[in-house]
Amino acid sequence: MVEKKEAVFNPWEVKGNINFDKLVKQFGLKKIEKLPDEFNENVLFRRKTIYAHRDLPRVLTAIKEKKNFAMMTGLMPSGKFHIGHMMVAQQMIFWQNLGAKIYIAVADVESYNARNMSLKEARETAIEEYIKNYAALGLKPKNCHIYFQSNRSKNVEQANAYYRLQNLLARHATFNEFKAVYGSISPGKMIASLLQAADMLHPQLPEFEDKCPVIVPVGIDQDPHLRLARDMSKRIKEYKFDTLASTYHKLMPGLGGGKMSSSDSNSYIALTDTPKEAARKISKYAFSGGKATLEEHRKKGGNPDIDISFQYLKYYFEQDDHELQNIYDDYKSGKLLSGELKKILIDKLKVFLEKHQSKRDKVDVNKFIDN
Amino acid sequence: MVEKKEAVFNPWEVKGNINFDKLVKQFGLKKIEKLPDEFNENVLFRRKTIYAHRDLPRVLTAIKEKKNFAMMTGLMPSGKFHIGHMMVAQQMIFWQNLGAKIYIAVADVESYNARNMSLKEARETAIEEYIKNYAALGLKPKNCHIYFQSNRSKNVEQANAYYRLQNLLARHATFNEFKAVYGSISPGKMIASLLQAADMLHPQLPEFEDKCPVIVPVGIDQDPHLRLARDMSKRIKEYKFDTLASTYHKLMPGLGGGKMSSSDSNSYIALTDTPKEAARKISKYAFSGGKATLEEHRKKGGNPDIDISFQYLKYYFEQDDHELQNIYDDYKSGKLLSGELKKILIDKLKVFLEKHQSKRDKVDVNKFIDN
Repeated sequence: MVEKKEAVFNPWEVKGNINFDKLVKQFGLKKIEKLPDEFNENVLFRRKTIYAHRDLPRVLTAIKEKKNFAMMTGLMPSGKFHIGHMMVAQQMIFWQNLGAKIYIAVADVESYNARNMSLKEARETAIEEYIKNYAALGLKPKNCHIYFQSNRSKNVEQANAYYRLQNLLARHATFNEFKAVYGSISPGKMIASLLQAADMLHPQLPEFEDKCPVIVPVGIDQDPHLRLARDMSKRIKEYKFDTLASTYHKLMPGLGGGKMSSSDSNSYIALTDTPKEAARKISKYAFSGGKATLEEHRKKGGNPDIDISFQYLKYYFEQDDHELQNIYDDYKSGKLLSGELKKILIDKLKVFLEKHQSKRDKVDVNKFIDN
Repeated sequence: MVEKKEAVFNPWEVKGNINFDKLVKQFGLKKIEKLPDEFNENVLFRRKTIYAHRDLPRVLTAIKEKKNFAMMTGLMPSGKFHIGHMMVAQQMIFWQNLGAKIYIAVADVESYNARNMSLKEARETAIEEYIKNYAALGLKPKNCHIYFQSNRSKNVEQANAYYRLQNLLARHATFNEFKAVYGSISPGKMIASLLQAADMLHPQLPEFEDKCPVIVPVGIDQDPHLRLARDMSKRIKEYKFDTLASTYHKLMPGLGGGKMSSSDSNSYIALTDTPKEAARKISKYAFSGGKATLEEHRKKGGNPDIDISFQYLKYYFEQDDHELQNIYDDYKSGKLLSGELKKILIDKLKVFLEKHQSKRDKVDVNKFIDN
């Protein structure tokens, strides 16, 4: 008998095996079905890596009617920026190109309160690891507001309005709701959670975009935060908030097949890894769907659905659907060997990393920071 | 057998009989003994209505050495401004005249979160009831910063710094500490409590007065808040805070001898009551230390120590010590009747209220408000 592991969610941990369909149902999400063509040009939407949503039509309507809308997300500055982080970065750029105002909160208050990180360290990590890589990936400074939670704005009406919202939201939630979101809470986590809700909601304040719909792209592990922010936004009568819209993407697995973790450098490829280092990690650590012997592999074929190299190609690095299908078929038939599959990824990554790192060197980060 | 009532403290309730000496010991306060002469010119210090302190010498040293120092207090906008509120107002003016920068927080976030009051109502009450009366009592706009918690400053560095402090303080306290202060807590009360700690500490930030000592005059029921703020200020390593200094004053009793309560207009004299209304309340409700019959009173004398009219004269309205002593002696001997004692207070109040209200009509409140 197999012991079934309960899936545990909180912003700091993802444990156990996740049944996405069950979660979609349990959390009251909708699967993403039909989307406008421009969405299917993006590999994440086309391959259903972004697979579920809440209230996405509000944003689609705004796009159709050429009205203002915003995309909001946050980053927790910790460790290296890796290919898992690239998922949200790609979405920022996608939404920006569709016309969204981009709001990105550097959660330095959260990293201070929940991870004992200094604001200085958080700032440096955010700039060097996150913002520079966002820019190199294609995020543009225009219509993009990256800010630090500890120092919201250079505009005083905005600064007061943002923190005011955080303070007033507190009346509209109970301790039990925070506990349900976090598992266990502390005053530091609770105030960070209120600030995170203010992050998500504040683009709609008159001091910012004023009442536009806001889309928040997240992994499903972040949904409890979104639901809490949505609930509070409906209870607070002082503001008229448009219901937060959200999309849900699958999390890129780590090299070994488990969680990709900032604290384990052998679980990820960092965007600052040299191509050589990336090749070494893939050769050594990337979990393979191949058979134990060459003979058996040729005969029975490999399993691309659990092969990490194939997954990475599917998530992002092979954008051509036909090419991806060929790789899938060849690996499954045994024609393509595990080492050869890894080589395909290694070559793709080499091109990607060299180009990315050359762009990254030229980034002027000051153009991106609000405060 | 008399059942002894436990004294209960939280910022919203004061129940039971308070043994001040016991509390001084229990809370680790010091009794106020010798003070510089200018303090004894003030009736509150001279008559030991302000009776205890923590770290007052830090402030006395700053005065002596002509260095910067600040006085910080807050107001919870609720109901009418009455003679009980005047106690803190008199201290603001006293400290201002000694050279202190005055910081006054309008606790509108607290009234929103803990009393379901709107920010608009809180603002109107603060201005009409509190700030106008402060000004009429003699508070001057120079070196006086009155601000609303929900909208700290017109200076953006100050606004960010104030709310940043609130957010970072959260790491340095536990839920149990908040519970110990409040009895029961909610997220709204907790965030208000962190903001209150930021109120007390922020004058020391570089964006404000930069490291000057701060004195906070309070009733002893507010001491748990002060201790929590002091404790947090010592734990947070990002800032170097001078230990908060505080003084403790006795609370003016209500007309009936119990608590003076904003929600019971027969328990107080409002500073906007007409002299006629004040006379009516005193005649009808002021608890008397007199005997049941005229004959018995003449023979045995009254008890000024429990007589509310005498207490009010002692707290504030008879500033002449010899005159007060004469009243005390005459009442105790039976020479002065209860009605006559009430008449002395009524006459004093008439002069005070007429003069005060005439000044209040001329106040330009805009000179006082930071934001």
